[in-house]
Amino acid sequence: MIIDCHGHYTTAPKELEAYRQKQIADLKEPSHARAKGTLSISDDQIRESIERAQLKLQRERGTDVTIFSPRAAGMGHHIGDVTTSLHWSQECNDLIHRVCTLFPKSFVGVCQLPQTPGVPPTSCIPELERCVKEYGFIGCNLNPDPSGGYWKDPPLTDKWWYPFYEKLVELDVPAMVHVSMSCNPNFHTTGGHYINGDTTAFMQLITADLFKDFPSLKFIIPHGGGAVPYHWGRYRGIAQDLKKPLLKDHLLNNVFFDTCVYHQPGIDLLFKVIPVDNILFASEMVGAVRGIDPETGSYYDDTKRYVEALKLSPEDRSKVFEGNARRVYSRLKNKIPASR
Amino acid sequence: MIIDCHGHYTTAPKELEAYRQKQIADLKEPSHARAKGTLSISDDQIRESIERAQLKLQRERGTDVTIFSPRAAGMGHHIGDVTTSLHWSQECNDLIHRVCTLFPKSFVGVCQLPQTPGVPPTSCIPELERCVKEYGFIGCNLNPDPSGGYWKDPPLTDKWWYPFYEKLVELDVPAMVHVSMSCNPNFHTTGGHYINGDTTAFMQLITADLFKDFPSLKFIIPHGGGAVPYHWGRYRGIAQDLKKPLLKDHLLNNVFFDTCVYHQPGIDLLFKVIPVDNILFASEMVGAVRGIDPETGSYYDDTKRYVEALKLSPEDRSKVFEGNARRVYSRLKNKIPASR
Repeated sequence: MIIDCHGHYTTAPKELEAYRQKQIADLKEPSHARAKGTLSISDDQIRESIERAQLKLQRERGTDVTIFSPRAAGMGHHIGDVTTSLHWSQECNDLIHRVCTLFPKSFVGVCQLPQTPGVPPTSCIPELERCVKEYGFIGCNLNPDPSGGYWKDPPLTDKWWYPFYEKLVELDVPAMVHVSMSCNPNFHTTGGHYINGDTTAFMQLITADLFKDFPSLKFIIPHGGGAVPYHWGRYRGIAQDLKKPLLKDHLLNNVFFDTCVYHQPGIDLLFKVIPVDNILFASEMVGAVRGIDPETGSYYDDTKRYVEALKLSPEDRSKVFEGNARRVYSRLKNKIPASR
Repeated sequence: MIIDCHGHYTTAPKELEAYRQKQIADLKEPSHARAKGTLSISDDQIRESIERAQLKLQRERGTDVTIFSPRAAGMGHHIGDVTTSLHWSQECNDLIHRVCTLFPKSFVGVCQLPQTPGVPPTSCIPELERCVKEYGFIGCNLNPDPSGGYWKDPPLTDKWWYPFYEKLVELDVPAMVHVSMSCNPNFHTTGGHYINGDTTAFMQLITADLFKDFPSLKFIIPHGGGAVPYHWGRYRGIAQDLKKPLLKDHLLNNVFFDTCVYHQPGIDLLFKVIPVDNILFASEMVGAVRGIDPETGSYYDDTKRYVEALKLSPEDRSKVFEGNARRVYSRLKNKIPASR
């Protein structure tokens, strides 16, 4: 079985974006801003939006299950306030649940959180619980920068986040550390801000001892870990200068990287420096890069090809494609029984 | 000849830091803040600070020349105002000039710029001209984020920077795109902010057509290009989605990467994906990582070992160690004649 741990609903029916635009417009009229509004999308629309995109690509590429969440760039936590973010997250998560209900063998849900800059992330606990307990979602996307490119909230290692981490541990669900859209003109969203977010989060974790306080907390750092594997020597060296344990002991019981790296040399490097137990297969399709690589004739984001070109033992291959995802997302077994 | 294109004066006598601390303290007293103050460091102090560190390591590692600039983390452009930054830059650049005068065969100067957040970079032109024309410096360090981790100035592709680029082109000196200290608690300076700065700058350049306007402008992106080579497929794919030319045509006549990547697999990747004509040897010693790698028994930042472990032809080896630096820093020949 091949599980893709990183897919977003980037192809949602246009009514979702219209809902969001109305929500944003209503922010200017306080009398409207507290109303949740309505979103009307039919099952047929959802089926069509998935069958023509993610499901078609799953079949063409030979993957089985996608761990599926709302569009990351669309989370837009910097817009409005707690209520804005809650309504928007509820609508987005409800749609993910409907996708997973319509295609229960192919998609498993991960939720968007109703984060808001400057608001303690305890505000996200009710929506997390709703998604995990009522919908059977198996994780969440945690935005380390709700300000959208200005990085104004405390680092992930700050006590600010601890009550939220306690809930993650209690529910036994991991968080993918994933920023949203950049509203800072310095950062291109998918080419700058996403990769910087990954690098930043990992470096924050090096400097502290978060996993002494939360030994069972698990983070997935997407996009192949940002710059981290390429600079693995730098990070090992900085940890050493900071008198921290070896990175494998300091972080790798709790931190995992996905394979959203869109060329063979990058995937080769990832597997050379990061232990295979810490790598989860992912493609982020349909996502940041949509084209076909003229150098290979295949889609840039068809990462299965790169992983299959590696010389992995059957055991290691199985870990990357399925076993590691089952270990990190412990609730996955409730939705998708193991293949054997 | 082996030219290291990226070294900072991280070992300056402690009087420099005392000068800076007094300058910062004086900001609270407007009557003092406009005075430049004095810095008294003897030639013997400079000799000792260099001979025990950078020069010793040059000899031990077998490199010949370092392109040398003030400590990058110390630039601190977010502190004070234009006058603060000008006085501080003048003192730092004067010290670099003294190092280069005392050790003319081993160090060539690159200047710090007196940037200030929100102030057009034309304010930096007089100090750039002073350093290039009076001291014979061969380049500058350009900070894409003078705010120190909040990214408040326009992207490098904005017209905001154009008058400064015109001067770089007129003087025929390149800029190394290098951030300074992070005052944002989210970003560890050398592990987060530096690498993000590199990635961010490259992605900014993808989105625009800066080098159509400045065909002879040259940027060095340090630290192996941040995350860029590891995600080369992503960047090729994003450029393609944006209908930009192939990256080699779009950027690689003007953008160069150094070899400050502190492990063999990272250097292997760099040379696999980036054309050898675009790679300049560098170590950034004495810099971000000071220790010895227990996996190799050598200093993490002894990057010459990694480059020498590559299977490069003599011609390519010579380009990386010398030829490319001479091409990018065209004024280098005035200071260090070619070895043949």
